[in-house]
Amino acid sequence: MTLDAAFILLVRVYYQDTDAGGVVYHSTYLDFMERARYEWMRELKLDINSLIQVHKVVFMVRSLKIEYFKPALLDDLLHVTVQATELGRTRITLSQHVLRDHVTLASATIHVVCVGADTRKLVSLPAPLRHKFGSFS
Amino acid sequence: MTLDAAFILLVRVYYQDTDAGGVVYHSTYLDFMERARYEWMRELKLDINSLIQVHKVVFMVRSLKIEYFKPALLDDLLHVTVQATELGRTRITLSQHVLRDHVTLASATIHVVCVGADTRKLVSLPAPLRHKFGSFS
Amino acid sequence: MTLDAAFILLVRVYYQDTDAGGVVYHSTYLDFMERARYEWMRELKLDINSLIQVHKVVFMVRSLKIEYFKPALLDDLLHVTVQATELGRTRITLSQHVLRDHVTLASATIHVVCVGADTRKLVSLPAPLRHKFGSFS
Amino acid sequence: MTLDAAFILLVRVYYQDTDAGGVVYHSTYLDFMERARYEWMRELKLDINSLIQVHKVVFMVRSLKIEYFKPALLDDLLHVTVQATELGRTRITLSQHVLRDHVTLASATIHVVCVGADTRKLVSLPAPLRHKFGSFS
Repeated sequence: MTLDAAFILLVRVYYQDTDAGGVVYHSTYLDFMERARYEWMRELKLDINSLIQVHKVVFMVRSLKIEYFKPALLDDLLHVTVQATELGRTRITLSQHVLRDHVTLASATIHVVCVGADTRKLVSLPAPLRHKFGSFS
Repeated sequence: MTLDAAFILLVRVYYQDTDAGGVVYHSTYLDFMERARYEWMRELKLDINSLIQVHKVVFMVRSLKIEYFKPALLDDLLHVTVQATELGRTRITLSQHVLRDHVTLASATIHVVCVGADTRKLVSLPAPLRHKFGSFS
Repeated sequence: MTLDAAFILLVRVYYQDTDAGGVVYHSTYLDFMERARYEWMRELKLDINSLIQVHKVVFMVRSLKIEYFKPALLDDLLHVTVQATELGRTRITLSQHVLRDHVTLASATIHVVCVGADTRKLVSLPAPLRHKFGSFS
Repeated sequence: MTLDAAFILLVRVYYQDTDAGGVVYHSTYLDFMERARYEWMRELKLDINSLIQVHKVVFMVRSLKIEYFKPALLDDLLHVTVQATELGRTRITLSQHVLRDHVTLASATIHVVCVGADTRKLVSLPAPLRHKFGSFS
């Protein structure tokens, strides 16, 4: 993986992201990662309205695995990365990391699938999208 | 207000509800209150599907005020109450409280309005709903 | 109120902020507002570590009222404002608004109180903080 | 795996759990699963206060994988299961499922580790806990 090629979103940790253990709540990392995927797609000119109106598709998380190494804390300024690592017919595999000062706090592999915006059934990744994602992977 | 007449939902506090201050995060009390309103309406046979399909309406929060007296903590078993206190043409005023061991931790007054399920525009409270809410207030 | 003088945080609306009604969930506006208050205080050099270690205080929401005018939607880029409107001995009153394209979607008045970082009991607003907040109000 | 032996928590889906796609937001399944683990441990007399004060430990999620098969919807009454499948020296492996009417909507394998309540460093699972978890696995 070439980290340089990955999209990076900066995310500040607020009280709302933490729990009584004093750290970021474990499912909140997935919320941070959704924000990064969304902004990454916006940068590829794949904002949600283009996806739905032009390409007639949306993406849904099909499965994921995540590993937690060190806790993120209130006030941290995190780097949340996204990188497409594999393009299937209907599925995109993404590698995502949460870092603080170049230290990886959590790493995930996320499989999203392309479904019809109306039908919510699996459809092949439209060619223009395949091209855009391909340029990142 | 007659507390005896109010609907009560029991809510356990989990890590996901707390923040790094060690207490329940302030907007989470509103989530607990939504759960109580929803279950109260289910008890009145006004589940979401009846509302939408039979009565063609949904409810939206129009305004609210909330006061926090003492913090709720991890593991607390809270009593979250709902009581209709006023029925307008399109609006219902609700009094809601969060209690632990008979001590009020937070109190809110919440105004919800009745809107068309499709149009999302204000509509008069359907007569059958008015009747049901009236029996509680 | 002089909107020009208010601090403004840009907030993008993601799926995680919305609900099945297709709009931003009502308590999420309060989360957006917490983010804005936090960044406003960071801009005043009142980040959480300074507050706790230098000034020995934290702020807690004591009460609030919020009014919802129009729904925020997925993909919106919101302006979330903060302005101190009143300084009491232990209490700060804030006016906060959520806007999209100069249209106000929601407005809140939020009372936060100053409490000891350890004791969580009400304390007078330290003079250096009073000075900083005063310059904004 | 013997589903009959698993602990089951009933969870109602509210607006706060859904997103603008009309379904339960993907990270919210993990919140439901945390609630089930917490209640399962309460049933084993391992409530958070016993853990911290008697056993001097807490549990943290170290890694997980989750697969989504069908979406959960607003108003669903879900069965969220927990079953310990493996006990290591410091680690417990849990199998968790979210079901609606006997149909599995999502399945996860979650690794939690035992850490000192104060130190947050890995410690061996205390013998009394090992015994309790063992009776379920």
